Amino acid sequence: MERRKFLRDSAAAAVLGSLAGEKLIAEAVGATSSAPNQGSSERKAVHAHIDANLPRHIEKIQEYLRQPSISAEGTGIKECAEMTRRYLAEAGCKEAELIPSKGHPGVWGYLDAGTKKTLVVYWMYDVQPVNPAEWKTPPFAAQLVPEPRWGAQGRIIRARGAINTKGPERAFLNAVESIRAANGRLPVNLMFLCEGEEEMSSPHMPDFVAKYRDRLSKADGVIFPMCSQDPDGRATLFLGNKGIVYVELESHGGPQGGPTKAEIHSSLKAAVDSPVWRLVQALASFTDATGNKIRIAGLADNIRKPTAREEELVEALLKELDGPAQMKLYGLERWIDGVDYRTSLRRLLFETTCNIDGMWAGYTGPGGKTILPHKANAKLDFRLVPNQKAADVVPLLRKHLDAHGFSDIKINWSNGYDPSQTDPDSALVKAAQATYADYGVKAVTWPRIAGSAPFYLFTRELKLPLVIFGLGHGSGAHSVDEYLVIDADGPIKGLADVEKGYADFLFNFAR
Amino acid sequence: MERRKFLRDSAAAAVLGSLAGEKLIAEAVGATSSAPNQGSSERKAVHAHIDANLPRHIEKIQEYLRQPSISAEGTGIKECAEMTRRYLAEAGCKEAELIPSKGHPGVWGYLDAGTKKTLVVYWMYDVQPVNPAEWKTPPFAAQLVPEPRWGAQGRIIRARGAINTKGPERAFLNAVESIRAANGRLPVNLMFLCEGEEEMSSPHMPDFVAKYRDRLSKADGVIFPMCSQDPDGRATLFLGNKGIVYVELESHGGPQGGPTKAEIHSSLKAAVDSPVWRLVQALASFTDATGNKIRIAGLADNIRKPTAREEELVEALLKELDGPAQMKLYGLERWIDGVDYRTSLRRLLFETTCNIDGMWAGYTGPGGKTILPHKANAKLDFRLVPNQKAADVVPLLRKHLDAHGFSDIKINWSNGYDPSQTDPDSALVKAAQATYADYGVKAVTWPRIAGSAPFYLFTRELKLPLVIFGLGHGSGAHSVDEYLVIDADGPIKGLADVEKGYADFLFNFAR
Repeated sequence: MERRKFLRDSAAAAVLGSLAGEKLIAEAVGATSSAPNQGSSERKAVHAHIDANLPRHIEKIQEYLRQPSISAEGTGIKECAEMTRRYLAEAGCKEAELIPSKGHPGVWGYLDAGTKKTLVVYWMYDVQPVNPAEWKTPPFAAQLVPEPRWGAQGRIIRARGAINTKGPERAFLNAVESIRAANGRLPVNLMFLCEGEEEMSSPHMPDFVAKYRDRLSKADGVIFPMCSQDPDGRATLFLGNKGIVYVELESHGGPQGGPTKAEIHSSLKAAVDSPVWRLVQALASFTDATGNKIRIAGLADNIRKPTAREEELVEALLKELDGPAQMKLYGLERWIDGVDYRTSLRRLLFETTCNIDGMWAGYTGPGGKTILPHKANAKLDFRLVPNQKAADVVPLLRKHLDAHGFSDIKINWSNGYDPSQTDPDSALVKAAQATYADYGVKAVTWPRIAGSAPFYLFTRELKLPLVIFGLGHGSGAHSVDEYLVIDADGPIKGLADVEKGYADFLFNFAR
Repeated sequence: MERRKFLRDSAAAAVLGSLAGEKLIAEAVGATSSAPNQGSSERKAVHAHIDANLPRHIEKIQEYLRQPSISAEGTGIKECAEMTRRYLAEAGCKEAELIPSKGHPGVWGYLDAGTKKTLVVYWMYDVQPVNPAEWKTPPFAAQLVPEPRWGAQGRIIRARGAINTKGPERAFLNAVESIRAANGRLPVNLMFLCEGEEEMSSPHMPDFVAKYRDRLSKADGVIFPMCSQDPDGRATLFLGNKGIVYVELESHGGPQGGPTKAEIHSSLKAAVDSPVWRLVQALASFTDATGNKIRIAGLADNIRKPTAREEELVEALLKELDGPAQMKLYGLERWIDGVDYRTSLRRLLFETTCNIDGMWAGYTGPGGKTILPHKANAKLDFRLVPNQKAADVVPLLRKHLDAHGFSDIKINWSNGYDPSQTDPDSALVKAAQATYADYGVKAVTWPRIAGSAPFYLFTRELKLPLVIFGLGHGSGAHSVDEYLVIDADGPIKGLADVEKGYADFLFNFAR
């Protein structure tokens, strides 16, 4: 999921972390650090069971993290798929089966609680590759180590997958097991849909969703277990994400002119067309002179206006966010087109984009080399908002290129998916917000995130609301020394509260 | 000199080699391979002296080539400068002195023959770096080895500098010595202006020319000794070269928008300006949509129309050249804008250009990475024809950028020089053509070459005609196994004729 890919660099982390409130660290959070007592006796029993079994729960998380599952390499995938299936069976899923695919298998689980409501758990069991030499402790040792950053009693598990996402997922399952052990049954039915290719852009998730479509579509919502607290304790709740289409363009010498085989001497420009100029002119036709107004006909046709509810959320967000701090974080001296922060935030949330991620042609080394290159390339991404469709973008781009005389410019490849949106007033969102409130954790709700994730499979295809939910904190996804906080003295919730929070979320959702 | 830099790759070699006639290999050249007998007794005596002293002349060339003089590294430069000075003194220069500079020294020599006419010899004593491991024989061993490509008696000297250009230069000096030995005096006075930084873009040549300006400006022409025969035996005579201005542009986040410190996540494009889009739009403003018509105001203002004489030369050239073969050589499916070969050749010779040599921004690796880069760069070169001035280009470019709202786009650096032009009807050119004809060598005369060299120092600053002249053949400049042909059975002239040709050129020029 791209959300976690953001975390690979500071700018990216800012999208989730700081845009969401990392700059608010100085503010008091006003939270308590203990679990709420206002719950029912059912909840109390579950909480007590979690407290009593915490050492074993920690061990289960370590066990899961110690099983490598690097999808890009295939390392441990088979074993981790089977471990996941077994976990689901042990947690009470009568159905717990591998889903064969042409790639890494999926895992399906169904836990029938005999209740009215059903929650889908989206689950990824794969992780990013590692370079163990760079880690403080071996990435698949999953050591429980002290971490003073989180207080005198601070402890973390350091492991690949600790936060992204086997740690939170196993914590969720620990909570499920405690609910069953304490109360005999769950407040909701659970459908688990797990994949082992999330870090490879989920190529078979559409197949998995299709296979269980009839059953999934009868559910009431989807949770992606996560630990969503920032280091300051604040939680962020995104109600959707933009879609994305990523394309690579290529201009190459051919019947329309230019050298076809190799670069030639630049003095020949006088007699020979340039594939580089063609790419530049084609790209330039996509926007106005500022690069900010898209001129590709039809691209924005299906964008719906923000709803009144979304507008409310933006106004609330503006009270939480600090524009100048954001500018500093990104190294900006102004927002787009020189607009104010409110306008830039509205554009961030509600507008489509055409961005050049990279371009290259010819000689790029030091000094000068006099060549007329035979090819030029650019990578672009388009971010999509409701109700744009990813499938429309490449045909519109092709049509634009052809109409502007650039039919020779190839779209080497493309991929992407639709935007995803969850109703801010859905019971699922309310359950998440209520649970954060139960624990005194301030949750900042965004109408959507400007980044992208393939959650349209649930929200658009199955019409299900989806939340990324969880107390607690971790970081280092896609990086070194990835961790999940197990114990913390400050506003960050430790593992016991993380698991109690998942349980309470289920109770809240079932209400 | 860029002319030789062309030879580094096949596309480049084509500009000089094949555009000039390499594709004519199949045609009969109709040349004799022996020296002409139509000369005076003076010439006959010189030719006899050259024949009698050929082994010693070969040794002198080997001696010069065995002295390394790699300007980029400084290797042997001091020794080679002094050797060059000594050679000039031994050849009869009463004045033979080093010219100190902040870089490698120049060498000045004056040989006073008491004649009316004076010829300047432009001379470079430096060579390109070498990787000895790649050579068949050590690059500074200057071995005389058999080479069957040039016939049963074929022999070459293989060495760095063999063709570029210490081989032809020392051969020229051998001819000078033979004239003096045989006849007592030269038919022309000679001024030698030598540099040891040609392979570093001649940074101190303007100073050297300025230092001897009063004396140089009284000369009647300039020769750059070369062996100008293609493998098919045909010689090419370029009457000028285009000027060049090379610039590197940079678009970078700043007060006009965009991230200033590092790339940020591409989803932020909705709220942040893009330095890449700015570069694309700025570049696009330089030309029309084809990339072929320049829209930078003033750039073409000073271009003079081709003269009737130049038009004649183009028509003659067209009879020699083979458009379809050229297209194949460069890997083209059409000439610029789809024009015919005549039009493309006229544009090649008479028009200015704006070429993108390279550009780069952001992510250029495999697959996709979603970033909004903080900078983007492009390298461009402008080729200049008479009477454009190199000094005008950057100010016009700056003015254009500013006028189009791109005052933030920086010109990181630039360099270049003016075009150079020699009168096709000058006595110097006629002497060169007459000498080729004397030896039955077909010479193809170009109004100019589309490439660039800093010969404006002589032609524009001093109003002197300049020829790159010489019988014979060599290749491998800037590459491995560089060679000069010493003996050949075919249309290529061997060293004896090369030296006789230089002598006859001086006689022809003196007439």
